[in-house]
This record gives sequence, C-alpha cells and structure tokens, in this order.
Amino acid sequence: MTATPGGGVTPFGARLAAAMDEHGPLCVGIDPHASLLHAWGLSDDVAGLREFSLRVVDALGGKVAAFKPQAAFFERHGSRGLGVLEEVIAAARATGSGGSGTLTIVDAKRGDIGSTMGAYAEAFLADGSPLAGDALTVSPYLGFGSLDPAVELATATGRGLFVLCLTSNKEGFEVQHAQTDGTSVAALMAAHAAVLNAGAEPMGSVGLVVGATIGDAVAATGTDLVAVNGPLLAPGVGAQGAGERELATTFGGARKNVLASSSRGVLAAGPDPEALVSAARAAAQEATKALRN
Amino acid sequence: MTATPGGGVTPFGARLAAAMDEHGPLCVGIDPHASLLHAWGLSDDVAGLREFSLRVVDALGGKVAAFKPQAAFFERHGSRGLGVLEEVIAAARATGSGGSGTLTIVDAKRGDIGSTMGAYAEAFLADGSPLAGDALTVSPYLGFGSLDPAVELATATGRGLFVLCLTSNKEGFEVQHAQTDGTSVAALMAAHAAVLNAGAEPMGSVGLVVGATIGDAVAATGTDLVAVNGPLLAPGVGAQGAGERELATTFGGARKNVLASSSRGVLAAGPDPEALVSAARAAAQEATKALRN
Repeated sequence: MTATPGGGVTPFGARLAAAMDEHGPLCVGIDPHASLLHAWGLSDDVAGLREFSLRVVDALGGKVAAFKPQAAFFERHGSRGLGVLEEVIAAARATGSGGSGTLTIVDAKRGDIGSTMGAYAEAFLADGSPLAGDALTVSPYLGFGSLDPAVELATATGRGLFVLCLTSNKEGFEVQHAQTDGTSVAALMAAHAAVLNAGAEPMGSVGLVVGATIGDAVAATGTDLVAVNGPLLAPGVGAQGAGERELATTFGGARKNVLASSSRGVLAAGPDPEALVSAARAAAQEATKALRN
Repeated sequence: MTATPGGGVTPFGARLAAAMDEHGPLCVGIDPHASLLHAWGLSDDVAGLREFSLRVVDALGGKVAAFKPQAAFFERHGSRGLGVLEEVIAAARATGSGGSGTLTIVDAKRGDIGSTMGAYAEAFLADGSPLAGDALTVSPYLGFGSLDPAVELATATGRGLFVLCLTSNKEGFEVQHAQTDGTSVAALMAAHAAVLNAGAEPMGSVGLVVGATIGDAVAATGTDLVAVNGPLLAPGVGAQGAGERELATTFGGARKNVLASSSRGVLAAGPDPEALVSAARAAAQEATKALRN
C-alpha cells in the first residue's frame, strides 16, 4: 500500500482513480479457463495455471489499471491452485514500484455473516495475508450490512470492495430487481455504498459490480449510480458488448467511474507478450473512447 | 461416493437422510476461530488449524450425520489453510467405510455465473477434486438459475447443494424478503429447489439454508418449505437458539428434513475427545427431540 504523509495509506478509490487516469479505465481479468490454457499450449494443471497467470502479469504489469484474477479458476486446482493466486497477487504488487503499478481486484464474491465474514476479510483484506490484493468482490445475499467486517478492514488497510449490484445475466432479475416498499434490491445496494463513499475525493473505495450490457435495468430498478461516488466494475464494455450509446444509457453521469473489465478479449491474444500488450492497449483505448468522451 | 447396483451413486439426499436416521439430525460445524484455537491451547496458525480440525474429525467421525467445515476459517490461513481443508475432507471421507460415515458439507457459499460457476462446481463437486466433500453451500444473488452448472455436476456425481434462502441476521431482510409481483426472493429460491427435488425419495439433493431463529419469516415471505422436499440446513437449533415451539412455527411439516447445525456449542467442549463426543451426542439428542417429535 502507498504510504501517505499522515502515516496512513492512500485509499483504494484514490489509487484506482489515478491508475485509470494513467493507463485508461481497463481491468484485465485473469480467467485461466481450461480452454485458454490449451489455446496457449499449456497443460490444464497447476503448472499450466501458474505459467499462464504469471505471463499475463509479466506482460501487462504496470501497463493497465488493474488485474482481476478470478478465484474460481484457481480453486479449480485446489489448494495448490490457490497458492498460484497468491503468487499472482505478489507478482502484481511487485509491479507497483514508482507509483504506476497495476492494482489487483480479487474476484472471489465472498459473503457471509459475523465472524465468518470477518475471517474472509482477514483472508482477502488484511495486511500481510497472502490472498490480499487491493480490492475484493463480495456478494450481499445476506444483506449489505452483513459485509460490515469487510468494509471496516478494507477502510483500515486502504483496500476496496466491489459489491455485486446489477448483473447482466437474466437469472439475476429475480433477486436484483425484487422490491421492498417500492425500492429494488439493486437500488438499496447502491444506496448503502453511497453512504460509505459520501464526500470521498476523487471517489470512495466501496464500488459496485454493474454489468455493462444490462440495458435499461439501472433506470428500471431506480438505481442511482452517480450518487454511489465509487468505482463501477463493468464486464461487457466494447467488442461484442455495450457500445457508447448503451454505456451512456446504463451509466449516465457515472461513466467516469466505470472500470471496464475484459478477460477473454485480451487473453485470447496471448501467449505472445507483445500481442497481449497490443490487445490490452486497444481495449483500454476503446474503453476510454466509450466512457470518457 | 456409495456405488449403487445401477453403477451410479446414491444421491446426496438419500445418503443424508440415512445418516440423519442413524446418528440424529445434527451437523457439526468445523469453525476454527482464532478464539477456539486458543481455548484448545493451539496456536493461531496453519499447524493449530490442522490439529484442531483433524481432532474434531477424529473424535466425531462416524458418530454424527455431517461435518460442515467453514471455508473462511481455512482461507484465513491462505493456500496452506485450504490445504488443511483438503485434509479434513479426506479424513471425513475415510470415516465412511461401512456406510455409517459422516458426510461433509463444505460451507463456502460460492456463487457466480457461466463458466466461472462451472469452475467452482469443478472445485467443490467433481469426483477427484481435493476440495469436493458431499455437498456445498452456494449463494444465489445472481439468481437461482446462475447455479445451474453446480446443480448439473452435483446431480451427476451424487453430491448435494444448500442454497442460501432465509438467514437469521436482520440485514438479510432487504434481499430475502424483497418481492417481485408479490413473491419474495426467499419463496422463489424455495420454489426453484422444489422443482429440482420433485419426486425424489426420501428427499432430493438440493437443500436450502434456513436459519432456525427467523421466527415468522417463513410465513411472512410465503416460503413453502414442505414443497422443497430437500434438506434444510439450520443454524440456531436448541441451546440459546430456537426451541421446539419456534421450530414448529418455522419449519412446520418440513421439520423432518431439518439438519441442525451446531458449531461453537459442540466445539467449545473440546479438545478432550470424549467431551466432544458427549457434547455432540447431547446436541444430536436435543435436535432429535426438538425436530422429530
């Protein structure tokens, strides 16, 4: 974490905003599918997983705003796979010298209550934990307030959270669009994040996951993304996803806080490092054009 | 997994029903809190975690219906902690010879979409995976249908799922009680499980997590637990939790399918193995009395 003059750490929201300004609003998902390992000529085992993931970090570290390793593809290889995730997080952190490093968002979608949520927070958000990147995705089926232990530890350590809010899969409607007294679940999640991020400059550290291809769902659920004042992690920006007009509809005035997530679109260009860099640069430019005009 | 004459495996629901009949409807949570490790005279590190967890399995294996290791407390120790979870799962499986072994429900509350949910399923529900017990808890914030890859693999391998439905923490209301066209999220989750379990004897393999101390929430949300025809994993039965009358209110005619989960109530009796067995036996008798009269 970056030390500040006061002895604390620069909050995740500020660090991410700086990284997006420098490298463009792109997060490269590290999703080591079996099919991608094969396409890169690697074996579908722990050695292939390790080679794949570290090649991505090596090629793109310091050149994109953020990495988003997907925990499931590491857990698929058991505890040894999780050991590779620890290596990936450490390697990404090592790109950070000089202030232009690439942040790491661990996409694990954890969620529980009480001391169990506290244990997940210690795993993914505590200084010194080998699984702690710069931010963690979390799931609020047990209510936004169930995430409190994660919010508290993230705040203390200068880390961030991305809370599942509105996703682009059609099955998500039955939960995310459901209402209490006329207010949708998605709108409630956004309102909780807004409270935590109030007054933060340039933006707070409690973000949301909002699919870029959800069409009019933000309006339909009454979700106020501008008020969130936090980062919006958005799969589906550009290429086969949402274009400029759709993004304007979905995110409106919150477009400047959107971090576009791309996985296969960049990774399929590998394993050649220069091809990966070119693909990431093109994706970042596309995201900049679509989100920052 | 137990082989059946047809060459397949006995479904989880049938195996759990048999285990509950034999040992009583008790699941012992393996929640290695730092405070419990200290209370047992163990260090709060991987060695302490391992010693604690394997002592529980050693003392209670073949004597209770199910273990429920809580993934968060293993992940708190990083990939080496997850390696201990693999040892715990293997040790629990080894108690299974002779048909009176203890089943393992891995409490990891995973949830995602598409190929990512598929990767979690491979990690926790595939034959041969070191993290695969007999069942997995899953989280449906992305909609029940997002869990399809897990449902499919669990069905194929004779494993089970417990889908988060109604939890006892007050923050859960804003999601679980929210409605679409007059139907609550909790009721929808139960209805989806009911479809999957329809016709299964003695019960299906897609269970729900329903807190025992939720009072009138089942009625208030219009959740039909009898129709689910699957196991109901319930924290909070007995001692400082829900008594016979509350359980009747909450579960009604579905009481026979309830698997009471107890963690600290049993674990605090350790580390002496005989004390653990006594505490588990008392908890199982209490659960039987409260749920089977």
